[in-house]
Amino acid sequence: MPQDSETLAGEDLTGFFQARDIALVGASDKSEWSKLIHSRFERFGHEGSLLAVNRNGNMAHGLPGFKSCTEADLPIDMAYIYVPATAVTEALRDAAAAGIRRAVILTSGFAEAGPEGAAMQDDVAAVARELGIRLMGPNSMGYANIAHRSAVTSINSRLPVRAGSLALVSQSGAIANELGKFAHTQAIGLSFLAATGNEADIGLADIVEYLVNDDAVKAIGIYAESINNPARFAAAAAKARAARKPIVLLKLGRSEMSAAIAQAHTGSLLGDDGIFDAMCQRYAITRVYSIEELIITANVLARVGPIYPARIGMLSISGGACAMYADLASIYGLDVPQWSEPTQAKLREVLPSFAATLNPLDVTGAVVQTPEIWTDAIRAVCEDPNIGMVLVVTLLPNTPTEVALLGDGIRPIGKAFRTAGRVPMVANTTVQDVSEARLEFMRDAGIDPILPNLDIGVRALAHLQRWSERLALEMPTGQAVVAAGTQPQGERETLAYLAERGVPVIKSVLVADAEAAGRAAASIGGPAALKIASPDIAHKTEAGGVRLNVAATDAARVFEEIIASVKNHAPAAAIDGVLVSPMRGAGTELIVGIVRDPEWGLAVSAGLGGVLTEILEDRAIRLAPLDAAAVRAMLMALRGARLLQGFRGQPAADLDRLSEVIVAIAQAAEALGPNLAVLEINPLRVHGAEIEALDALAVYQA
Amino acid sequence: MPQDSETLAGEDLTGFFQARDIALVGASDKSEWSKLIHSRFERFGHEGSLLAVNRNGNMAHGLPGFKSCTEADLPIDMAYIYVPATAVTEALRDAAAAGIRRAVILTSGFAEAGPEGAAMQDDVAAVARELGIRLMGPNSMGYANIAHRSAVTSINSRLPVRAGSLALVSQSGAIANELGKFAHTQAIGLSFLAATGNEADIGLADIVEYLVNDDAVKAIGIYAESINNPARFAAAAAKARAARKPIVLLKLGRSEMSAAIAQAHTGSLLGDDGIFDAMCQRYAITRVYSIEELIITANVLARVGPIYPARIGMLSISGGACAMYADLASIYGLDVPQWSEPTQAKLREVLPSFAATLNPLDVTGAVVQTPEIWTDAIRAVCEDPNIGMVLVVTLLPNTPTEVALLGDGIRPIGKAFRTAGRVPMVANTTVQDVSEARLEFMRDAGIDPILPNLDIGVRALAHLQRWSERLALEMPTGQAVVAAGTQPQGERETLAYLAERGVPVIKSVLVADAEAAGRAAASIGGPAALKIASPDIAHKTEAGGVRLNVAATDAARVFEEIIASVKNHAPAAAIDGVLVSPMRGAGTELIVGIVRDPEWGLAVSAGLGGVLTEILEDRAIRLAPLDAAAVRAMLMALRGARLLQGFRGQPAADLDRLSEVIVAIAQAAEALGPNLAVLEINPLRVHGAEIEALDALAVYQA
Repeated sequence: MPQDSETLAGEDLTGFFQARDIALVGASDKSEWSKLIHSRFERFGHEGSLLAVNRNGNMAHGLPGFKSCTEADLPIDMAYIYVPATAVTEALRDAAAAGIRRAVILTSGFAEAGPEGAAMQDDVAAVARELGIRLMGPNSMGYANIAHRSAVTSINSRLPVRAGSLALVSQSGAIANELGKFAHTQAIGLSFLAATGNEADIGLADIVEYLVNDDAVKAIGIYAESINNPARFAAAAAKARAARKPIVLLKLGRSEMSAAIAQAHTGSLLGDDGIFDAMCQRYAITRVYSIEELIITANVLARVGPIYPARIGMLSISGGACAMYADLASIYGLDVPQWSEPTQAKLREVLPSFAATLNPLDVTGAVVQTPEIWTDAIRAVCEDPNIGMVLVVTLLPNTPTEVALLGDGIRPIGKAFRTAGRVPMVANTTVQDVSEARLEFMRDAGIDPILPNLDIGVRALAHLQRWSERLALEMPTGQAVVAAGTQPQGERETLAYLAERGVPVIKSVLVADAEAAGRAAASIGGPAALKIASPDIAHKTEAGGVRLNVAATDAARVFEEIIASVKNHAPAAAIDGVLVSPMRGAGTELIVGIVRDPEWGLAVSAGLGGVLTEILEDRAIRLAPLDAAAVRAMLMALRGARLLQGFRGQPAADLDRLSEVIVAIAQAAEALGPNLAVLEINPLRVHGAEIEALDALAVYQA
Repeated sequence: MPQDSETLAGEDLTGFFQARDIALVGASDKSEWSKLIHSRFERFGHEGSLLAVNRNGNMAHGLPGFKSCTEADLPIDMAYIYVPATAVTEALRDAAAAGIRRAVILTSGFAEAGPEGAAMQDDVAAVARELGIRLMGPNSMGYANIAHRSAVTSINSRLPVRAGSLALVSQSGAIANELGKFAHTQAIGLSFLAATGNEADIGLADIVEYLVNDDAVKAIGIYAESINNPARFAAAAAKARAARKPIVLLKLGRSEMSAAIAQAHTGSLLGDDGIFDAMCQRYAITRVYSIEELIITANVLARVGPIYPARIGMLSISGGACAMYADLASIYGLDVPQWSEPTQAKLREVLPSFAATLNPLDVTGAVVQTPEIWTDAIRAVCEDPNIGMVLVVTLLPNTPTEVALLGDGIRPIGKAFRTAGRVPMVANTTVQDVSEARLEFMRDAGIDPILPNLDIGVRALAHLQRWSERLALEMPTGQAVVAAGTQPQGERETLAYLAERGVPVIKSVLVADAEAAGRAAASIGGPAALKIASPDIAHKTEAGGVRLNVAATDAARVFEEIIASVKNHAPAAAIDGVLVSPMRGAGTELIVGIVRDPEWGLAVSAGLGGVLTEILEDRAIRLAPLDAAAVRAMLMALRGARLLQGFRGQPAADLDRLSEVIVAIAQAAEALGPNLAVLEINPLRVHGAEIEALDALAVYQA
């Protein structure tokens, strides 16, 4: 099972991931596996010395052989261990004796292979901690730090290895291979590629932290089955966000079935996926669901960076590609803004008279005869203030024949982009492996195609838009909250506590007898709500403890009925009395809940009452702390947000005030301390600027 | 502009699409374009004789040359015309004089190039009609009928051309090239590939009809910007459905922006996209939004056919792939059923003890040591009655090195599938061009990988599931409807008309004075609804013409108030009186609308009243005619369907009765004849088995 190694956490891992002098512990000329491992050093351009360690001290793969690391008596940065599982701890002790404090353990047969393996893995982790060794693995395929020419890995790569700015980290070795392979077929260069395996020590969070600090890395792509150290991962993600270094994450567990598989596969229980999404939202992590989407999105974010305005303009020689782009944009949530009026005027001058001046822009087949149309149209749209990026979609040649056929039609695009001073973004229509012929043509034409096709490309651009929008908002930071020093129980105490903390709550009177109930109801001057007040009854309605729309003249009788019903339902419950409060009329009812997630801390959810929440599960979730701007964005993310903006004669909700109230609720929850499990306000009534908690409940951890 | 050629429509086009002896009108050795065109015959394996026609009667590309088709005096099936635009009609006349009745016109510069070109195209179409010539084009890249070795096309293909069972038709030549190219990179064989261009005569509908009748074709993939002959297209689609031959359609215009671009691009106004979806639903056409999705889905449907049960089981050696599959399935609406209990019991015997027996099934890395696990696990799940298909996801090798590395681990899958007697469905994890090395390995291993990857693959499987489900239902056919011979106006007449046609409607009394209103209200024995009855007032509420919850004692006064308000609001309106009807209590309100679509005829929509319809636009649309089963499925497709199934203490709607009522409404609309534009019942109140139209309105075309 994955474990934290708290004592060593936070250490700078630069030395680990830029190791030079490596001992191959288990190297043997007789082993095909060992040969394959050795071949990776050259493949990934490792710079440093290698030596072989094996039982007989034999040479292997042309490397000097030693019986142990201690015997070698040479400077060694890293023990690269692939001896049988039962010999791993011995190998670690030898390494430590030689002064080595770093190890990559390829050997499998540990936690991934059942309970016995898990026990062995615990031993390995304990021994490493005792010896002060940081390690990747076991069952890890190591890392290839291409940018820094250090590779301790069994991950494969097609040739030529392409150096670039994208870092990829996977918990699975098989998926690491696939990530690298797809990036290679798309001619996307990597700075770093790693597979963490069983994460007995170094895990995703540690690697993300290292990559955030590495200037050679422009984006981080992650494949994760579970996040084993949420706190450290969140800290690393916060640093990435602050550095505007994008993280793109393929994390399993969106569906219940996937969570069950991941649990069976990794042994980790996955938490609420909605809360995981909220974590991604907070740290501007882009979450994706396939390997292709991961690679292409990470590459776009790495190469383009955040765009302002976070909107994209598109042009193509193909009207069909324009319309497909627009349809895919509406499916994937990519905005398609209009060109500004001056841009449209310029385009009318530049394009044939029968052309429309829409975005996406069909420049028409006229560019075949008149390539300057490309230059003029691209220059015109590049100056448009409505957009932060321009994309050209065209067919890209992939064979020498296609280069001869299509090349001259495409070169003007490269020229136009150069004079317009923008990153040239060019997309092909369908995905295919990028050939050397295309790469050569593109270099020559000065065009750098970031998107392989429309299908994945539009998704990647939608991610670019949302990531840019998120970065444009400040990440909410917490204000210091004074601890409550109390644990309010039941509706009455909880509402009173919220009122102290600045949350508007409905006024109510606690009455102990029927006569007092009648008096309290009469003083309201309208119908009343009567509810049982008992610390022992969480579900008041089911106990017959709630009566609504009670006339003042009926209040005394209803008091007696409530008491009788509750005593019948729960004879042992302590009864404080009955709460009498005014009935409220029209308005929108929200459900605001704060829950403590064991991994990610306090999460705030908001939903509109009624069918939207109950049938469509329309709720938005964000991690605390929140500020008013974040709450407002959260409310606007509800599918039923229009209900808050004035609908069917209802006044529009005062969103500023409502956001402040929800921030106050979240702070009140935080002040209740680490034992708070759930704080729920249901409903929070909103009618224009009238905002009031009508009922509330707090639940604490045992 | 695209036009119908009604006089010639419906003719069998087998001779057209299997032409043998071709005159290349415009052929010249001096033209690179002509050389390229000529090279396509060999590329696509055309069988038949070729000859060149040009001004000087020169030989070209080694073909005998003639000054005209008449001069050639040889049997010619088809004139393949690529002379300049201004010479096209002359070429047609020459062809006709030589007895040729078929032409493909490649020449561009017609409707796609502006108004002058459109006028020229009209001339060409008129001349062809006059001469009795059927034609593709102008601006058409022709067709390659690979299965029948006839190709009159300028469409490109990479080599080797792969013969197969997939037919592809595109209105755009550029997209036809892309379709063919993507299919080629995925090693998917084609039977037919065509680009219709401007469709002055032969269009999509004609070609679909031809392809439905061609046994070499197992699925039809279409790229369309607009359907120029909806009636003929619907007829062809109905034949395809009856033959269980799948149509997969990439049709532009889902989004408003896309519709605007398509209109600018093709000159055709696109109709309501929701109604277009309803047409697809009716004919079991699978609609897609990208070229990759089109090709992969069409290939899966062609190769697998409908599956029963319409559910899929999946296994993989990679737990990560299983979980990714499950997440993508939840995104794309693919069901992931559990294995039956007997299957799970068998799997527990076969798999290592630490493995879970979920679907998707992680067979675990134990298969590396024990390949028989593949055989046993695949055999076990293939017998499961819950599923109609089994998919294995694994890494497929693409290079000789990868074949050496991965091949032995994959061969057992092919063996297992052979003994299990199922179509082997194998998917790779990520998309890449299929190499010759992979193809050779696959042939050898007896594995036929239908899916290129998970991202597109899961979408294709979701389409397979839905297509199978649709085919399992009968296509609703119309009953003969007796024409109404009337055009009811206003609420009262429309409700009365619906009542005659078997639709339950609320009872109401038309009163002409206040006293009668009082009497009518008193006879109800509860609160009443009073509404103005006037053929001139469509929006009764806005005119002050509706009052709800009126007590009997107030009815006379309210009558006067309504009359006063309406006279004030619309002094010229004819007033028949006031309708008095009982108020109805709790229940669910539906909006049922029938609209006449200019392209696809009567469309029936149903939505739940309130926020679901107004804010979330939750409505379902189907084309008429409908039967009760289709209406039931339509209602269950609503996102808020749970409201009809008994929610918050409301009784469940009697769905059988409700479906019959909606069928009766649709038939009543049909009986109103071709002038009916809209019939709307709003609301149709549903409370258990109580179903009643409370208000209705009919609108006719001018």
